[in-house]
Amino acid sequence: MLDFEFFSPTTFYFGRKAEEKAGRAAKKFGGTRVLIHYGSNTAKKSGLVDRVRASLETEGIYGVELGGVVPNPRVDLVYQGIELSRKEKIDMVLAVGGGSVIDSSKAIAMGVFYEGDVWDYFTGKALLKKILPVGSVLTIPAAGSEGSWGVVLSNDNGRKKRALNHPLLRPVFAIMNPELTMSLPPYQTAVGVADMMAHVLERYISNSTDVELTDRICEGVLKAMIHEAPRIIADPNDYGARANIMWAGCLAHNNICGVGREQDWASHRIELELSALYDVAHGAGMAVILPAFMRYSLKHGVNRYAQLAVRVFDCDYDFENPERTAIQGIERLTSFFRSIGLPTTLQELGAREEDIPYMTKNIQMISNNQIGNFQPFGYEGIEAIFRLALGGRVA
Amino acid sequence: MLDFEFFSPTTFYFGRKAEEKAGRAAKKFGGTRVLIHYGSNTAKKSGLVDRVRASLETEGIYGVELGGVVPNPRVDLVYQGIELSRKEKIDMVLAVGGGSVIDSSKAIAMGVFYEGDVWDYFTGKALLKKILPVGSVLTIPAAGSEGSWGVVLSNDNGRKKRALNHPLLRPVFAIMNPELTMSLPPYQTAVGVADMMAHVLERYISNSTDVELTDRICEGVLKAMIHEAPRIIADPNDYGARANIMWAGCLAHNNICGVGREQDWASHRIELELSALYDVAHGAGMAVILPAFMRYSLKHGVNRYAQLAVRVFDCDYDFENPERTAIQGIERLTSFFRSIGLPTTLQELGAREEDIPYMTKNIQMISNNQIGNFQPFGYEGIEAIFRLALGGRVA
Repeated sequence: MLDFEFFSPTTFYFGRKAEEKAGRAAKKFGGTRVLIHYGSNTAKKSGLVDRVRASLETEGIYGVELGGVVPNPRVDLVYQGIELSRKEKIDMVLAVGGGSVIDSSKAIAMGVFYEGDVWDYFTGKALLKKILPVGSVLTIPAAGSEGSWGVVLSNDNGRKKRALNHPLLRPVFAIMNPELTMSLPPYQTAVGVADMMAHVLERYISNSTDVELTDRICEGVLKAMIHEAPRIIADPNDYGARANIMWAGCLAHNNICGVGREQDWASHRIELELSALYDVAHGAGMAVILPAFMRYSLKHGVNRYAQLAVRVFDCDYDFENPERTAIQGIERLTSFFRSIGLPTTLQELGAREEDIPYMTKNIQMISNNQIGNFQPFGYEGIEAIFRLALGGRVA
Repeated sequence: MLDFEFFSPTTFYFGRKAEEKAGRAAKKFGGTRVLIHYGSNTAKKSGLVDRVRASLETEGIYGVELGGVVPNPRVDLVYQGIELSRKEKIDMVLAVGGGSVIDSSKAIAMGVFYEGDVWDYFTGKALLKKILPVGSVLTIPAAGSEGSWGVVLSNDNGRKKRALNHPLLRPVFAIMNPELTMSLPPYQTAVGVADMMAHVLERYISNSTDVELTDRICEGVLKAMIHEAPRIIADPNDYGARANIMWAGCLAHNNICGVGREQDWASHRIELELSALYDVAHGAGMAVILPAFMRYSLKHGVNRYAQLAVRVFDCDYDFENPERTAIQGIERLTSFFRSIGLPTTLQELGAREEDIPYMTKNIQMISNNQIGNFQPFGYEGIEAIFRLALGGRVA
């Protein structure tokens, strides 16, 4: 087990009608003038934004609204939000929506105290020192941003997508009412589940030893997701299943699944290009890239993928040929993604084989011209993974 | 799944030489005059207290020492600590030790701002409003107090033992170096493991439905403990096993295993009397009481105990007679306790059959003259459980 620091200070208000606690929560964490940030459609039309605003007003908190966040959120709206926040002397940003809205809120909260371009934080030109408190009323369980220390933002009309992690990016509170997720269509539910599973697997796919406890937690979270997601597909109004998936999305990414171990994240880097170029949902991209990455790293990962196969996908361990077990695990992961309606090939995503060289070149290397930690690789590996993600192969 | 709030703000510094971060951690959380609180023996003699003090001094922090905490910590020393803290204008309490030292530190931190008797908090006469920040350098993984919202204290020369939970009781930081636990003798390691397992099981034994995720996390934590504890018994210096057990003790009791569900805690109430009367280690008492409680509640708990048997103890489910599976699970739990050197009968604890009526009467009822939530029971049930815990029965 590697040395680690773990800090997850977010207060979670979980359950039915939890959004009615927005005012009390904002007050508790010092909000007096709150920017209510949301997406373009359902949050406002459903009346949720108005209910949240009313809850704030009950506590004497002034609210300013800013909608318009799109999936794979853009820096342009963040600039607007920063300007508005300064003008209105905002002291808290409250996201009402999913991961994109929360990330856009985090970026606004980062930018208010910074005189330069907030994008500087994402290019490494500036270091984060201070941030407005961020809270959320979560409506889409997927990204885990409600409890995580991460933020992802897009620039250049969506063509550049960058991620940043920082302890200051942990939200102060998150309001999680599973009822608010019942209106999510099956496909969006499924991409959310893939997103969560990918967050666990990026941590699980590791060379670190003596991490039995964290392994077991990863496996437990995955098993719960695999058990609960089909229940939602069968009945979108199943509160219990919605609740388990919503909480799982948070635990998948607050790093309780990742402490004490090397983490990989190569698949995420690769997928960022995919969702930037085609504007596909991140979770759908992960459902395609992750199994391809696992097949690419099969030889190195026999033990790890066999453990996943046995412990999560209930495969029998093949003592004569453990690699077969490993492959079976990857196949069952792919089958699971398909069973909940997700794409598992680049073609199904609408991606084109001829774009592979362009996407490959676009990926920023971390160090030594390589990405990932499990089995670090460079441009050749990335291209190979994209090609493994093409259809016409055995799952 | 029941509605819940979850808040676990403690920062964990985990790994080799982590105690060297004590000064930085104390400074970060506002400590300038720190009470260093510890037990009577090893922490001081081993030089750990001096190293922690040196780390504080490096950051310009003034330290005052108070040793002498005993297992099942007493209010008398807490009174001393409160007086000393007021005199020395202490602004943080830093526990160097195990759960008893942390709990004694929490009680001191509770009392400093309260003009009455700090015991009032434990009898319900006073409500906690304000507390000094508490940090810890953990040396005994067991109680989980380093991350929990609980405190347990004894009065009347140890004969009264009371527990209290409050959000303000969550420590601000915990320093966890598994190397510091290598000197723990096997028996103390084992009672620590039983303590942790009991914290998970009190949450796992529940009537709540739709808690698949939390169930899986509970099961994962238990499986990891069952895997790692024998490794420590075989080799006390196994860093990886020590690390897994240390982190498990924290997760077992910070309530990540308990959110969204009814919890039981009847066994803990019963055990409190046992450790108060005979001054036995809490974990040893739990290893005796918990299986007895499970046998007492067998009919009600067939499903739950069968799930434990299958998922944690790898039993085959007996489709013809699930109760057999449930019993097998309880038997394997008992066997596991025995295998790591724990007592599993009252006699082995040194408890006497003739004390059962006295201990039974001593237990304060919660409501309706009953304790527990899984299958609430009164004095008759308590006495029955004590008798089931007597030796001479099938495990």
